[in-house]
Amino acid sequence: MAWLTATYLIASAPERIEERAEALAIEQSVECPPEAVHDARIRDEIVARVASIEPAGEHRFRVNVRIAVQTTGGETAQLINMIFGNCSLWENVQLTGLELPPELLARFTGPRHGIAGIRELLGAPHRSLTSAAMKPQGMHVPAIATMCRTLARAGVDIVKDDHGIADQAYSPFAERVAACQAAIAEAVAATGKPSFYAPHLIGTPRTLRAHARIARDAGVRVVLVAPMLVGLPAFRDLVDEFPEFVYLAHPSFGGAARIAPALLFGRIFRLLGADAPIFVNYGGRFAYSQDECGTLTATAREPWGDVRPALPVPAGGMRLDRVEELLAFYGPDTMLLIGGNLLLAQGDALEARAREFVTTVEGIGARASA
Amino acid sequence: MAWLTATYLIASAPERIEERAEALAIEQSVECPPEAVHDARIRDEIVARVASIEPAGEHRFRVNVRIAVQTTGGETAQLINMIFGNCSLWENVQLTGLELPPELLARFTGPRHGIAGIRELLGAPHRSLTSAAMKPQGMHVPAIATMCRTLARAGVDIVKDDHGIADQAYSPFAERVAACQAAIAEAVAATGKPSFYAPHLIGTPRTLRAHARIARDAGVRVVLVAPMLVGLPAFRDLVDEFPEFVYLAHPSFGGAARIAPALLFGRIFRLLGADAPIFVNYGGRFAYSQDECGTLTATAREPWGDVRPALPVPAGGMRLDRVEELLAFYGPDTMLLIGGNLLLAQGDALEARAREFVTTVEGIGARASA
Repeated sequence: MAWLTATYLIASAPERIEERAEALAIEQSVECPPEAVHDARIRDEIVARVASIEPAGEHRFRVNVRIAVQTTGGETAQLINMIFGNCSLWENVQLTGLELPPELLARFTGPRHGIAGIRELLGAPHRSLTSAAMKPQGMHVPAIATMCRTLARAGVDIVKDDHGIADQAYSPFAERVAACQAAIAEAVAATGKPSFYAPHLIGTPRTLRAHARIARDAGVRVVLVAPMLVGLPAFRDLVDEFPEFVYLAHPSFGGAARIAPALLFGRIFRLLGADAPIFVNYGGRFAYSQDECGTLTATAREPWGDVRPALPVPAGGMRLDRVEELLAFYGPDTMLLIGGNLLLAQGDALEARAREFVTTVEGIGARASA
Repeated sequence: MAWLTATYLIASAPERIEERAEALAIEQSVECPPEAVHDARIRDEIVARVASIEPAGEHRFRVNVRIAVQTTGGETAQLINMIFGNCSLWENVQLTGLELPPELLARFTGPRHGIAGIRELLGAPHRSLTSAAMKPQGMHVPAIATMCRTLARAGVDIVKDDHGIADQAYSPFAERVAACQAAIAEAVAATGKPSFYAPHLIGTPRTLRAHARIARDAGVRVVLVAPMLVGLPAFRDLVDEFPEFVYLAHPSFGGAARIAPALLFGRIFRLLGADAPIFVNYGGRFAYSQDECGTLTATAREPWGDVRPALPVPAGGMRLDRVEELLAFYGPDTMLLIGGNLLLAQGDALEARAREFVTTVEGIGARASA
């Protein structure tokens, strides 16, 4: 008999929390009145149980619920169903934690590359890493390819599609991948420094697979995927079928108010194979606190069975003048992702601005490791 | 130049709402500072724009944003990305509405069967319809098959797996489908009344497809899928590849606090092919109001281009003694889904209780159409 533990933050009057916690355990397992469970085996082995209830602020409680591993069938979609299916529809419940026993954790490979694999690919064993997003969507392919070359020439490690760039008529996927791969190869030949283009894979599972094949055939090594947009189970299938890619995971459609960001982006995305979860940085245009970002980062990197550590990628309203502060906070096992702030400049000025970003990041990394 | 309109409910101080609305339009399109958009075509054709801001209560505003159709690429995942990608990560923003221009709507087939197709399948042109869920998960296949036969003998139109029943070792999918199909055939032979077993399809896209084939080969006509669990794009692929199934759409993992229930379950699920969206009924163990349920039901059924009306399926803490009230509220184009409340009884008593449910629903339907 093995059990996983899911943790929920529940808003409740103190006199009602026991009842609510019990109701949640029922909702997330047999989902029927306990008196409708006529079989003793099911009561003993299948019905979830409340393991603990702790105060977590005024009218808030942290509730640990033990859920039978056998109910998950060891499968991605059903695991999500069991930990946050119906109770996602409840008011005032947030999923904040997930602990899997070793036999269930072993069903998930996690990142195929992780921090170490990304460092090896980039030939950068110690320093902090850089990424830049190509924006705005709507650019035609030649303009995107030019921007890609410029950013790679400036020394950016990973040049990625903006997550709004999909397979639109103005920049079709196959044409864009070919052009950006050629552009980046040209830049790498000039600089002698490794740099990779990461196209955005988005669509239904059939499209994802078709696009992944195109990317693989074009020599792409790093891709961008938004697991909540394509669906967590589809993300899992993609990683299983194309393990050669390094996966940057984008938080789009993460609706993170109902699942704690550290859990969703730092742990669940990692569990399903994200090598480098992108998340919204504190002090930018999103409402994440520094504490939340710190917890998320620690969660992505912490030891977890045989699951490789994932590389945290803070992003969202990132500015050049914050690089020093951010690396001091996040440390070197971090990839800083900068988007719009670089793109205030164009052409040669863009290259200079991107180079400033790269040298600042790498300079701090070098000082730290010296 | 075609534009879709997405509607958001935003909590904001009145003096800040214009700025927040503009920021949302940028976030959901080019996602960079407006001054980083150097191309006039992109400013004119790609950048989303605020169409209107209306008060919607104290410190709440309803904001219509026009988003360029070409940014969606006519594709499911990217459509979701454009309407609620990054801004799902904002605090105090709810997606509440979606209007698609005809050329974009035409890219989506919607329900393949809808209300009319379900009525035809069931041979029930006018009356209200019934469904029952088999619970609790953990039962072995023979027990599930027996329950399936009992409920079909009682005359229930659609007997469905509980959404917690997946492909666990205690009731493997293929074995369960074969046994339940045999059980229901036996009941139908005895009663002469059509009745259908709806197995739960859940898993990664590869599993979904494999299970759908097993179900189709076994003669299954109705299936249960939770679109948010399997991922909206994977749901779309499934419906496209297996259009012969009637799709009951389960709200699990719907996290509906961030997307208005009427929009997610009544409109988006329908757009992607749900024939019958299940939703949580008012006055049960979920917090939906009667108003919300009424809006959801109206949204599922309302005329919408060439998209067929979908059959609303209220569920969740449904009780026999509420049937009359609920049908008076929802009207005959409704399928009532009852789960745990029936299962307080077992064996012959369960059959009698299920028959009472069926005759009550059908009796009210007959009176209403007389």
